[in-house]
Amino acid sequence: MDQAVIDAAIKEITSQEKAGQGNERIKEITNRLMSDLFNAMADLDITSEEMWKACNFLTQAGKSNEFGLLYAGLGIERFIDVKMDWEDAQAGIELKTPRTIEGPLYVAGAPEFNGFAELETVAEPDSERLYMSGVVRDEDGNPISNAKVEVWHCNLKGLYSIFDSSQPAYNLRRSIITDAEGRYEFKSFVPVGYACPPGGSTDTLMSLLGRHGARPAHIHFFVSAPTYRKLTTQINIEGDPLTFDDFAFATRPELVPHITRLSLEEAKATGKDEPYASISFDFNMIHDSDKIVPGENQRTRVSLDK
Amino acid sequence: MDQAVIDAAIKEITSQEKAGQGNERIKEITNRLMSDLFNAMADLDITSEEMWKACNFLTQAGKSNEFGLLYAGLGIERFIDVKMDWEDAQAGIELKTPRTIEGPLYVAGAPEFNGFAELETVAEPDSERLYMSGVVRDEDGNPISNAKVEVWHCNLKGLYSIFDSSQPAYNLRRSIITDAEGRYEFKSFVPVGYACPPGGSTDTLMSLLGRHGARPAHIHFFVSAPTYRKLTTQINIEGDPLTFDDFAFATRPELVPHITRLSLEEAKATGKDEPYASISFDFNMIHDSDKIVPGENQRTRVSLDK
Repeated sequence: MDQAVIDAAIKEITSQEKAGQGNERIKEITNRLMSDLFNAMADLDITSEEMWKACNFLTQAGKSNEFGLLYAGLGIERFIDVKMDWEDAQAGIELKTPRTIEGPLYVAGAPEFNGFAELETVAEPDSERLYMSGVVRDEDGNPISNAKVEVWHCNLKGLYSIFDSSQPAYNLRRSIITDAEGRYEFKSFVPVGYACPPGGSTDTLMSLLGRHGARPAHIHFFVSAPTYRKLTTQINIEGDPLTFDDFAFATRPELVPHITRLSLEEAKATGKDEPYASISFDFNMIHDSDKIVPGENQRTRVSLDK
Repeated sequence: MDQAVIDAAIKEITSQEKAGQGNERIKEITNRLMSDLFNAMADLDITSEEMWKACNFLTQAGKSNEFGLLYAGLGIERFIDVKMDWEDAQAGIELKTPRTIEGPLYVAGAPEFNGFAELETVAEPDSERLYMSGVVRDEDGNPISNAKVEVWHCNLKGLYSIFDSSQPAYNLRRSIITDAEGRYEFKSFVPVGYACPPGGSTDTLMSLLGRHGARPAHIHFFVSAPTYRKLTTQINIEGDPLTFDDFAFATRPELVPHITRLSLEEAKATGKDEPYASISFDFNMIHDSDKIVPGENQRTRVSLDK
């Protein structure tokens, strides 16, 4: 299509915006995105039929609450991090513990414990015991006491409590307050990888893109402490074949800690009565400032408080 | 942001697409749109918070089934027409009756009548009687008999049957088959303009854009006949103050026919027993071909057949 035709259409459509009314930022972003879309429709000869299929797809994605998953699978959530990493680098900030995506499955209000927590509200059958521990530290490596480590992971079916009503609320979701030495520890089991809901919007799109919609096994964290910027991150379970093939692009090499497996004999030597896997991982925080990218976003999350 | 950083992110995200798997067209379109989005995020410094607000907005628009309205209000549906008009022009086709948007409110299966139909299943109180008639014609002006004129419009509350359950199904929706002279005629009342659902996704976005979300009074048509390309169009009710300020950008000057108002005395002279408004409007069709833009799209429409 002639660029003049495209430009005239954009002008026609933006002409209804009244100066001084509405929100200038929304106007700026919307007009850029619409201009990009119209140019793409022209350049790629996107047909009426294709545009209406897209409309159906967007509608279904909303109805099934999959836009969060689409943000992950399309790399939008990853790019939000890429942009914040770049902004941190511009501000001279080097993150020892990289941020990575939150995903759509955090729920506030998990039970809080001091220093140590068991994540299982109910025991997970046939699981591999996991102890994970470490220290929350500042830029200089000093421990931060009274930091809050929020942790959540899936069960062996790849499902998260609250989203999966067969589990007790807050199963595998805990908040742990670090002790005087900045230490946290939890007892749980090694989680598994999982995939997008089969046949759902994200799974369908991933297939059309010649991709899979699966994630490697991982554990989610929010780490926060007064005067520090909230950290959103994950660790991967070392050895998962999808570790560097995550459909959500969340893996960072620094977030794949070594996992140590102890036999019953070795476990007994550490005072435990069963074989277990062990992960040691420290979280490094940076001081907050209104001059740097915020650690919190205003994402709407599932809540039990309503 | 440095273009190299953006490009590297796009490369990372598209790297999971396996050659020979999935759909090459979906890959092409998705990758273009994602590349455009990432560049816009960088250029406009779109924040994490803004991206998550957008995610919430998209989810809500899907849940409330407003993507069709958003296509209208954002000019996407208009641009689909602009592009088809341009393609017709390239093919040397001049449309005497312009196409315009369908909108999201067509429902198949309306009662069918030969030559003439009353659109009101129930009488609309306090309405202005309308008779509209005309001829369906081919490129040379010859009448097309047995053409199907599908017509739908809203009631005086601005609501469409089936979407508005207070009306009988198919109220103000009819199919009229043209007679041997290509004529159609219907009896109804002059509809009113209306606005997007207050507080809904589209209304909210229009306000943020400093715009209104209202349409002038109009009547929708599909016109079809064997060997002719289906025509999707509307006519406007002349004199509506929003005629050339339609939030859906559907008005074309050729689609605003003159409306004639007859007094009781004048009406009686035409054999009617009440004053009425009269619109005369011919639809000009073109022969179909697989070399031109199709008249039908695969839009998913509301249906009573399930």
